[in-house]
Amino acid sequence: MKFTTKQITVRYSETDQMQFVHHSNYLKYFEIARLQWLSVLDISYADMEKEGILMPVVSAFTNFKKPLFFGDHFQINVILRKIPTATIEFDYIIVNQKDEVICEGNTVLAFLSPKTKRPMRCPKTLLEKFI
Amino acid sequence: MKFTTKQITVRYSETDQMQFVHHSNYLKYFEIARLQWLSVLDISYADMEKEGILMPVVSAFTNFKKPLFFGDHFQINVILRKIPTATIEFDYIIVNQKDEVICEGNTVLAFLSPKTKRPMRCPKTLLEKFI
Amino acid sequence: MKFTTKQITVRYSETDQMQFVHHSNYLKYFEIARLQWLSVLDISYADMEKEGILMPVVSAFTNFKKPLFFGDHFQINVILRKIPTATIEFDYIIVNQKDEVICEGNTVLAFLSPKTKRPMRCPKTLLEKFI
Amino acid sequence: MKFTTKQITVRYSETDQMQFVHHSNYLKYFEIARLQWLSVLDISYADMEKEGILMPVVSAFTNFKKPLFFGDHFQINVILRKIPTATIEFDYIIVNQKDEVICEGNTVLAFLSPKTKRPMRCPKTLLEKFI
Repeated sequence: MKFTTKQITVRYSETDQMQFVHHSNYLKYFEIARLQWLSVLDISYADMEKEGILMPVVSAFTNFKKPLFFGDHFQINVILRKIPTATIEFDYIIVNQKDEVICEGNTVLAFLSPKTKRPMRCPKTLLEKFI
Repeated sequence: MKFTTKQITVRYSETDQMQFVHHSNYLKYFEIARLQWLSVLDISYADMEKEGILMPVVSAFTNFKKPLFFGDHFQINVILRKIPTATIEFDYIIVNQKDEVICEGNTVLAFLSPKTKRPMRCPKTLLEKFI
Repeated sequence: MKFTTKQITVRYSETDQMQFVHHSNYLKYFEIARLQWLSVLDISYADMEKEGILMPVVSAFTNFKKPLFFGDHFQINVILRKIPTATIEFDYIIVNQKDEVICEGNTVLAFLSPKTKRPMRCPKTLLEKFI
Repeated sequence: MKFTTKQITVRYSETDQMQFVHHSNYLKYFEIARLQWLSVLDISYADMEKEGILMPVVSAFTNFKKPLFFGDHFQINVILRKIPTATIEFDYIIVNQKDEVICEGNTVLAFLSPKTKRPMRCPKTLLEKFI
C-alpha cells in the first residue's frame, strides 16, 4: 500500500547554518507523513492515544541524497511493505518540487498496550485499514 | 531572589541559516534556567507534574541584543521579582562567554490544579522556597 | 494592512509532555505567517537573503490564551500596524478550528545591510508593497 | 577510537505528549557527541566551516531501546570504526544515569570541498587526530 502526502513547505526554522534543513527534521517529516496517512484512512492517532495505545518509534533509518532548502516544497511517499504485526514498518521517499529524490527512509513503530505499556499486536481497527 | 545557571553550550542544531541561534530557542533556554533553579531549590518539577500540577507559560517576552553563535557558551541569570501568587514571574538575562548581554526576557507561568485543570495558587512547598 | 495564513496543522513533534504545543513553537508559527505574507506579496525572503539582507528578530512577545493540541488546525492573522522604518513590526493572532483565540503576539524585526551587517532602512522593494 | 561525552540532561522541550523524548532529538544528541569529541581533539568544527569545509550527514540509523524521560541524565559513547576517507562514520550508544542502554545509532558524514561543494577526502588535520 502507498500514500503520498500533500505538499509541505520547508520552514525557515528547520534550516541550520549549513544553509539547508537540519537532518533531524526528516524524522519529523516522516512522522507527519504516516500520521497524515492514518488520518486519510480515517484513523485518528489522537483518539488511539486517548484509548491508551501508543506507537513509539523503535528504529529509524535515513539516507540523505540532496538537501532541502528554505522555501522548497516537497511531498512524501509512504509505503507499507508488510502486514503490521506487533510492529508496523514504513518506507519513505521525499521528493522536492523539481521531482528530485531528497531522501529515503524507514521507520519501525511498536504498539504499546494501554494497560501494561508492553508490546501488543496491531489493533484490529488499524489492521483492517491496511489489508 | 536570583539564580545563575551552569554554563550552557550552543548546539549546532539550534542555529538557522542566518548563521546564529534561531530566536525560538531562547524560550527553551529560559525554561532550562527556571527548571534548573527549581532543581537547585530541591523542587522536582517532574514530581510536581506527577502530582498533577502543571505550570504552563501564559506570556513570554524576549528582547534580543546580540546573536549567539554555534559553540558559544552562555549563562542565564534568573530573577524572581515578586512573591508568586496564582502566577510566577521570572526575568532572564543571557550573558555569553565574553560577558556580553545577549538577551533579556520575561515569562509568566500559571499554576493549574491537578483535578480541575483550572488556575490555582502557587503550591505551598514551592512558595516556601521563594520567601 | 492585514493577512491571514492558510490553515496549519499542529505536528505531533510540536507537543511536549504537558500534552499540548510547546510555547517556543509559537515563535516559529509567527515566522511562518510573516514569510507566507511576504511570499503572497511576491517578495522572496530567500532572494532577499541571497542579496545579503537579513531580518533578525529584535523582540518578541507572546500572550498564551488557550493551548493548541496535536491535530488542531489554526490560522494566523498578521497585522502591520505602522510603516516599516529601520524595523518592521507585526502583530499576530492565532485562531484555531473552533474560532477560539489561542494566542496573540508581536515581533519587531530589524533590517541588516548586506555589506556592513549594520541596521539599515527597510528596502524600497519591500516598503512599496506595504504602502 | 572511542569517546564519551559529558553528562547531558534531558530538556523539557525535548519531550512530546508520549511523555518521553521525541525520537528526532537523538540525531541532535549524536551531533552534540561528535562535535564534543572533535572539540576535545582540538578540532573546531566552527573553524572548519569558516574555511568552507562542510560535513553534512549522509545517512543516519537509530535503534531505540528504552525511552529517555524529562530530567534524565545520559552520556553518549562515540566509536570511530574505521579510518575516515571521503566519509566519516560514527557509532553511538546512549546510556542513562541508571546505566541502561537507551539507544544505539550510526551516522555517516561526508566532507564537502569549500570551493566546489563536491565530496572531498577527509581533511589532513582531522585525519591526523584519528590515526
